Amino acid sequence: MTDVHTDRTPNRPLAGTVVLDLTTALSGPYATLLLGGLGATVVKVENPATGGDSARYNSPYYGQDGLSTARSADTDMSVSMMGRGRNKKSITINLKDARGRETFLRLARNVDIVVENYAAGTADRLGVGYRDVRAVNPSVIYTSISGFGADGGTGKAMDSIIQAMSGVMYTAGEPGTDPVRFGLPVGDLLAPLFAVIGTLAAKIQRDRDGAGQHVDVSMLGALTSLLSTEPFDALEQVGMPLRTGNALPRLAPFGIFPAEDGQIALCGPTDTFARGVFRAMGRPDLIDDERFATRDQRVRHATELHEMVGAWTRGRPRAEAVSTLIGQGVPAAEVLEPANALRNPEVLRREEVVELDHPQHGATGLMGPGVPIRFSYCDVRLDQPAPHLGEHTQEVLARIGGLSAQEIAELREAGVV
Amino acid sequence: MTDVHTDRTPNRPLAGTVVLDLTTALSGPYATLLLGGLGATVVKVENPATGGDSARYNSPYYGQDGLSTARSADTDMSVSMMGRGRNKKSITINLKDARGRETFLRLARNVDIVVENYAAGTADRLGVGYRDVRAVNPSVIYTSISGFGADGGTGKAMDSIIQAMSGVMYTAGEPGTDPVRFGLPVGDLLAPLFAVIGTLAAKIQRDRDGAGQHVDVSMLGALTSLLSTEPFDALEQVGMPLRTGNALPRLAPFGIFPAEDGQIALCGPTDTFARGVFRAMGRPDLIDDERFATRDQRVRHATELHEMVGAWTRGRPRAEAVSTLIGQGVPAAEVLEPANALRNPEVLRREEVVELDHPQHGATGLMGPGVPIRFSYCDVRLDQPAPHLGEHTQEVLARIGGLSAQEIAELREAGVV
Repeated sequence: MTDVHTDRTPNRPLAGTVVLDLTTALSGPYATLLLGGLGATVVKVENPATGGDSARYNSPYYGQDGLSTARSADTDMSVSMMGRGRNKKSITINLKDARGRETFLRLARNVDIVVENYAAGTADRLGVGYRDVRAVNPSVIYTSISGFGADGGTGKAMDSIIQAMSGVMYTAGEPGTDPVRFGLPVGDLLAPLFAVIGTLAAKIQRDRDGAGQHVDVSMLGALTSLLSTEPFDALEQVGMPLRTGNALPRLAPFGIFPAEDGQIALCGPTDTFARGVFRAMGRPDLIDDERFATRDQRVRHATELHEMVGAWTRGRPRAEAVSTLIGQGVPAAEVLEPANALRNPEVLRREEVVELDHPQHGATGLMGPGVPIRFSYCDVRLDQPAPHLGEHTQEVLARIGGLSAQEIAELREAGVV
Repeated sequence: MTDVHTDRTPNRPLAGTVVLDLTTALSGPYATLLLGGLGATVVKVENPATGGDSARYNSPYYGQDGLSTARSADTDMSVSMMGRGRNKKSITINLKDARGRETFLRLARNVDIVVENYAAGTADRLGVGYRDVRAVNPSVIYTSISGFGADGGTGKAMDSIIQAMSGVMYTAGEPGTDPVRFGLPVGDLLAPLFAVIGTLAAKIQRDRDGAGQHVDVSMLGALTSLLSTEPFDALEQVGMPLRTGNALPRLAPFGIFPAEDGQIALCGPTDTFARGVFRAMGRPDLIDDERFATRDQRVRHATELHEMVGAWTRGRPRAEAVSTLIGQGVPAAEVLEPANALRNPEVLRREEVVELDHPQHGATGLMGPGVPIRFSYCDVRLDQPAPHLGEHTQEVLARIGGLSAQEIAELREAGVV
């Protein structure tokens, strides 16, 4: 469907691919953000009756005077939307209206991919599910992200519910303490990565044999599956502890240690690394100390060893402790707060994190995700600011849906788009 | 290169695609595991001089008598390898030997994809880097996973170092407390997902125009980028707290609460959900209580509200508390330990987590990752048990490398393979 994509360079991997995007909030929009970064034309369908994607109303907002917790002008945009809406076009369609559904299907006929993250069953009820779209476009790739799978429970899937059910909350913290909710919403953010993998795999299949299909990813399944890459199960059965807090005695010296002005992480599981730790501490004598000479001995005396390491780090600025350790070849790092981590010059140079632009006010100084993959040949980037609600309705309905100016005017008049 | 793949069904998306896999440990092998599940023929190259992938020596092991912490028979296999080695063929090549490098390049000439996760610069030093492979195979897709990027620092990237630098450790825990290391190794496990996305995107590009390329993913960049999907930066600037522990006052009632026999998660940010919580607690009177009647009021009185919710959950078994909440339409779940979470019947039914087989001893009762994507048309699964070291050397060198029986015998004699 290359005709509608003269704005795409040919060596974006998904150049010429059109995605109809029914997603809202975080999980689905992150999937379509990545597809947009890979060069697809992503058409975000929003409900005019509700003001569009709920992420448009996540405080804080960015406007003429910078950040604020409330919207004060029409062009103010939530920071969430400035990040997630990039490389997307926004159109409005009320899918609960029969004419809206018909308009959607006219578009769906001419796209390659549909992505949705309604609760399981909702898209079917609205008449925009896989069967409905396949009926007008047999080779469509239709990707669903839901809490528990397209054939799973219909319970409300929120990040912390998914985290709780997946087992991850019991992988952090000290043994015997309360479970730990992770502030990075991994319940929301794993499923979109698998959804993109599934969508690209389905595209490879379709490029080969023309077959469309339904790609169905569960938030719970995605996170639980990732958890199962570590043999927590077997470790428990042989009596090895699953939760060890910030230290890991079986890899001693290993853990998070307090410095004068913050915390540092270090990892010294091998003899070579452990010796580097002892040298950094100015205690080369410990290298031959029988309590610490071998890995088995270090594991046995982990508590004692970790206390000694902590006593050394505590008296030093973290930058100094880390550079001393690295100077001895030991893997070590300062533990950073998000705001600092996002401004790591290397991460910015590689465009894994990028500055967000407001569509009217330009550079914001706020950071958001890039596509964290570097291609030597493809041109992959998030280079178009997020659209305001419905900004591309006219253009998309005409060019992709083939609607006449009069048809569009009538739909607009009726409040359907 | 379909000739060597008579064992693949045609509707595996990567049927006919050959991957040469130089990865070890967790991050790289998880990427090639997913490619194998999607139908690629994955040839795992291991060093005969060191006994192969270090993950073969991760305790515990599985053998004739089940699990144990030490290897006692040649056919014993680490649980890590039983999981990560599936749908892969194992061959041995000593790449430090010139004949080994030459053998590798004979294979590389005939494959579609190479994946490696050496520290940045190592593959080039060994003479198996992108430039070396491209010289013999211009259309190759060469995917690198490293700590800080192919052009980044050469520091040792271990999961907890990546976690520390990415900012995630300060997204969990109570404000003012120590950073929190996450037991699920997200520092290791995000990069492979982006590496698979990059590899598939590059394949789509190559299927279109024949161009090969280098795909370069950084563990730090992948995790930091994911972190930047949440506007931590903007939240901090407007004075909203980043770390709120297990509760989230701005969504009250929301959090993890103690039950009689464990903990539960519940989310009630909307009026509808909050009313459901009050009804579940047998306190419908709170619906009209002015302290809790609106979201703003609930946020203002979050501490008080959360204490009341905790007092109700504390006296009940978690299953009962959760079913009462769900009965009132409130998103709620028991907080599960990994061993239980991995056995969620829905997750098993959808094959997002699957039972691991030992190549000789069959079903193990241990759980490992499936490919957590359901395809309505493609046949995607991890259905071949992990190989022992070098099991496919003969077959692969002959069929993919085109080496004669005599050449292989000589290499074997010399200890090169």
